[in-house]
Amino acid sequence: MEGDHITTLSTPVMVVDVDIVKRNAEKMREHWTKLGVTLRPHMKTHKTLECGDIMTGGSRSCIVVSTLAEAGFYADHGYDDILYAYSVPFDKVERCAVLAERLSLFQVLLDHRDALEQLRKRPLTDGRVWHVWLKLDCDNGRAGVLHSEPEALRLAQAISESEGVELTGVYAHCGNTYGCRGAEQIHAVAHETTTLVLQFMEKLKAVGISCKSSIGSTPSCSQPISDMAKLSEVHPGNYVFFDVQQSVIGSCGLEDVAVRVLSRVIGHSPHRNQLLLDCGWSALRLLSMTQEHGRVEPLSGQLDYSRYPLGTLLTIIPYHACATAMMHSVYYVHSGGRLVGKWTPTRGW
Amino acid sequence: MEGDHITTLSTPVMVVDVDIVKRNAEKMREHWTKLGVTLRPHMKTHKTLECGDIMTGGSRSCIVVSTLAEAGFYADHGYDDILYAYSVPFDKVERCAVLAERLSLFQVLLDHRDALEQLRKRPLTDGRVWHVWLKLDCDNGRAGVLHSEPEALRLAQAISESEGVELTGVYAHCGNTYGCRGAEQIHAVAHETTTLVLQFMEKLKAVGISCKSSIGSTPSCSQPISDMAKLSEVHPGNYVFFDVQQSVIGSCGLEDVAVRVLSRVIGHSPHRNQLLLDCGWSALRLLSMTQEHGRVEPLSGQLDYSRYPLGTLLTIIPYHACATAMMHSVYYVHSGGRLVGKWTPTRGW
Repeated sequence: MEGDHITTLSTPVMVVDVDIVKRNAEKMREHWTKLGVTLRPHMKTHKTLECGDIMTGGSRSCIVVSTLAEAGFYADHGYDDILYAYSVPFDKVERCAVLAERLSLFQVLLDHRDALEQLRKRPLTDGRVWHVWLKLDCDNGRAGVLHSEPEALRLAQAISESEGVELTGVYAHCGNTYGCRGAEQIHAVAHETTTLVLQFMEKLKAVGISCKSSIGSTPSCSQPISDMAKLSEVHPGNYVFFDVQQSVIGSCGLEDVAVRVLSRVIGHSPHRNQLLLDCGWSALRLLSMTQEHGRVEPLSGQLDYSRYPLGTLLTIIPYHACATAMMHSVYYVHSGGRLVGKWTPTRGW
Repeated sequence: MEGDHITTLSTPVMVVDVDIVKRNAEKMREHWTKLGVTLRPHMKTHKTLECGDIMTGGSRSCIVVSTLAEAGFYADHGYDDILYAYSVPFDKVERCAVLAERLSLFQVLLDHRDALEQLRKRPLTDGRVWHVWLKLDCDNGRAGVLHSEPEALRLAQAISESEGVELTGVYAHCGNTYGCRGAEQIHAVAHETTTLVLQFMEKLKAVGISCKSSIGSTPSCSQPISDMAKLSEVHPGNYVFFDVQQSVIGSCGLEDVAVRVLSRVIGHSPHRNQLLLDCGWSALRLLSMTQEHGRVEPLSGQLDYSRYPLGTLLTIIPYHACATAMMHSVYYVHSGGRLVGKWTPTRGW
């Protein structure tokens, strides 16, 4: 297989351009090295060892994951300093404890007092402490205790005062950048989230607490504002692949997108002015597909079927790379169109 | 694990009630035995050996699949008489040929002259012939040559006249039943598709061709009309699990749905009147989810968070079972809430 051209692959298949992956990873590293902020790359988009190695520059250290399955996978392959950035689920406290007792540094995240109680009920052995990030919702609209709620500060205090637990940092995900169009709007959201996090850090300081701060999202970290230099860490993930959505938001150009789904024409439907592809939502997540069929229509005019005979190979740029990658149990990796290997992601929770 | 209650499982997780699965399978078998029509169950929803065994009543024969990966998986486990009901992709002709030369009966499907040409270019060994179904679009809107096009009849003739190729049957998928609400609308679509297929069979007869006929879709096969008794086969698949969509269409009641996603509350967002679940689109495919988070809002009024403390187990009935199953690499199987085993689906194409 190695050395073969990607056009010889059986379709549907997801292919990754390793040169673009390396370029995206390098660019993000340079950004943040220059600003003096630790880059803690998120593994959720690809969930592979090989891409993790590229994102960490081979250090196998300082990563963030979205599932405990990822945490275990990376730990099993020699990674350390892993942040499980997900409100610690009560049914997984014991698995978290095992990782915390095994790695030099395994960090968890929470946004509720009951979660803190769960950690306290499971003290770590050998004098270890739980390293806990407080998830702050800076009007980003998903997980987190709202920055303006008095409970946010009180919870931070409770964490830092609890025995066997350490407040490691404050973590925000500016997921509301996903509604942005263009650098200016991204900067506005990044500015708002950064300001709210830094204000919260001041409040902590006023009560004698000092800890790290981190914000994420590929849009804000690809278009950083100068204030972000005051943060301890950033945690973007999608940037290593990018996708159409990121290019629409303004995080990247289409030439920065490292992934493609290859698909072949398997049908002509002249009575509907459509082509049928061998790529449905089980290969690519888009609207108006069925399980194993994709439907393509021209933006205008009549399809010229002679240009797309059955078997024609089409190259599709995914709208959302994280979602597309989830549908593939293997990614085919190429350099300049020639296969150089396969990456196998971990799955589950 | 066996004997444990499903509430002990780590979430998110997909669970299957084996008693409902058996009841759904049995009911469908009875329907069609009574009508004297062969039931060729579709494996695409679950893609497991165990559920295939239940659907075929243990015969391991006479099934339909949506991917060649499924065909290979079932063939490797002793299944035979497999119909790969997918416009034969040109990059997979050789893999199809290998299966056709290995099984007693492996059948393919096509809707274009170029696909026939591909089969002719790869004659089977040992005097075997390609068993080919013609995919007919009876205004169902996906694959298939349109029933009213003269090309439909000409293509059927070309198949039956080609050396090394046999016209096994005419295949239609009344996917347009998915827009129905209630038995009456389902009957109307089933009637229309059945009538168009039977009219086409008459046209074939008039030019001296006789072959089988088959229509599918869980809605039409769960609410059959008497004319369907004139068909040779039916090929529904989803019915073994059913889901919310099928209950909305009118194929089943909610009590017939065999699958659930179990999820736990991992966050409270009182500032948005929402609960946060550990189940995102990587576990369940629904709108307004992110990768690992689901958001739940009350239909009206304020959420009473004391009723849903963090860690609360919720049971979610999937909207689309085929799509939900695709996101899980293992299904936990129970009887009356007690675990009896795990089913592992095949994946890929």
